Amino acid sequence: MKEADQLKKLVGEAAADDIKDGMTVGLGSGSTVYWMVKKLGEKVKEGLQIQGVPTSNTTAEWAREFGVPLTDFSKVQELDLTIDGADEVGENLHLIKGGGGALFREKVVAAAAKELVIIVDGSKLVSHLGEFALPVEVLPFGWEVTAEQISNLGCSPTLRTSQGETYITDNGNYILDCPFGQITDPEVLHSELKSIVGVIETGLFIGMADKIVVGKEDKVEVISKT
Amino acid sequence: MKEADQLKKLVGEAAADDIKDGMTVGLGSGSTVYWMVKKLGEKVKEGLQIQGVPTSNTTAEWAREFGVPLTDFSKVQELDLTIDGADEVGENLHLIKGGGGALFREKVVAAAAKELVIIVDGSKLVSHLGEFALPVEVLPFGWEVTAEQISNLGCSPTLRTSQGETYITDNGNYILDCPFGQITDPEVLHSELKSIVGVIETGLFIGMADKIVVGKEDKVEVISKT
Repeated sequence: MKEADQLKKLVGEAAADDIKDGMTVGLGSGSTVYWMVKKLGEKVKEGLQIQGVPTSNTTAEWAREFGVPLTDFSKVQELDLTIDGADEVGENLHLIKGGGGALFREKVVAAAAKELVIIVDGSKLVSHLGEFALPVEVLPFGWEVTAEQISNLGCSPTLRTSQGETYITDNGNYILDCPFGQITDPEVLHSELKSIVGVIETGLFIGMADKIVVGKEDKVEVISKT
Repeated sequence: MKEADQLKKLVGEAAADDIKDGMTVGLGSGSTVYWMVKKLGEKVKEGLQIQGVPTSNTTAEWAREFGVPLTDFSKVQELDLTIDGADEVGENLHLIKGGGGALFREKVVAAAAKELVIIVDGSKLVSHLGEFALPVEVLPFGWEVTAEQISNLGCSPTLRTSQGETYITDNGNYILDCPFGQITDPEVLHSELKSIVGVIETGLFIGMADKIVVGKEDKVEVISKT
């Protein structure tokens, strides 16, 4: 196993220990979450009683494979905990997410949780967000005008494609990848983007994370909200 | 013809006079716009050269019926003028729109226009917006949580239905009709609603209208932005 994968496994498994009996848990997406769901499956076999709410079809498949019971998001009003990955973690635990395209569902499930725990390997920690191109979900109708307005904020958006076709989100929308380079004020940028007609959601998660579990070399570090 | 329809015809036809040779024009939706498009068709037959961008399939059908040339929104970056109706017109020309369900496309087409002209009969003028339940377009995933968060702002949202089925917008989303009663600060409410994860767009059109053409009894009044 590669070193990066080892770290993902380490933090994913560590995060599974945060999940207690009786909890309803939001299950994020991505390769680090994979290890968390796998570990969770073992704990369920040992008697842990929980319900999971997946943020993507892939996560739902993993949960079924490893025996983690799932429930429908529409049946719960509040989650005890959501555990998810991130593409970048910057100052004040602000995040960029959405590299995998599920940013909207991830944000809804994160917003509905009493606590949001983010699991990453050390390479995701940055001093300023923005090296990772910010994913912004937009409505297909008039997306060119939306992209033009986003470009006025200081980047050249690219319409995300997948295997030569326009990438379509689970909600039937498009993703614009917006390389801002360095985002000096994530809160202001998020607000400016959201005020553009046609923008559904941005990959900036502002003040939502409560705890970051980071894999560094062979140990796990925890950064908590101050 | 009923009196209300007479007024709609009067203002619709008056608005058509704002459209000059060579313009690209956003064509709104609703019964007042019908008369505008009909009149426009006559002018086109007399030699007026314009291109229309429809905000709904119904408007596109009217345009084809009356011979108004159409173009695709994706082919134009800016419109010279958009003419549309409204459900309520309040102070400072702020509007509530979306009774017909096309609020998002109407807003995109309005935002792309150099000038927005609103055509209404006098019954739509109000001192405070909000008697008309504010339409809010939301993503289907987790709409119950979105509705719960909207209700914290002071109303009981109703999921719009049509012939017993959940109403689906042209973008594949839902509409929550939100009866706020009296909206004291439309700008703040719009901003609060937009910051809720899952809200795509609201029917509040803040500071977008440049001119209101109002049908009152047998005459047309014009209210311009101050």
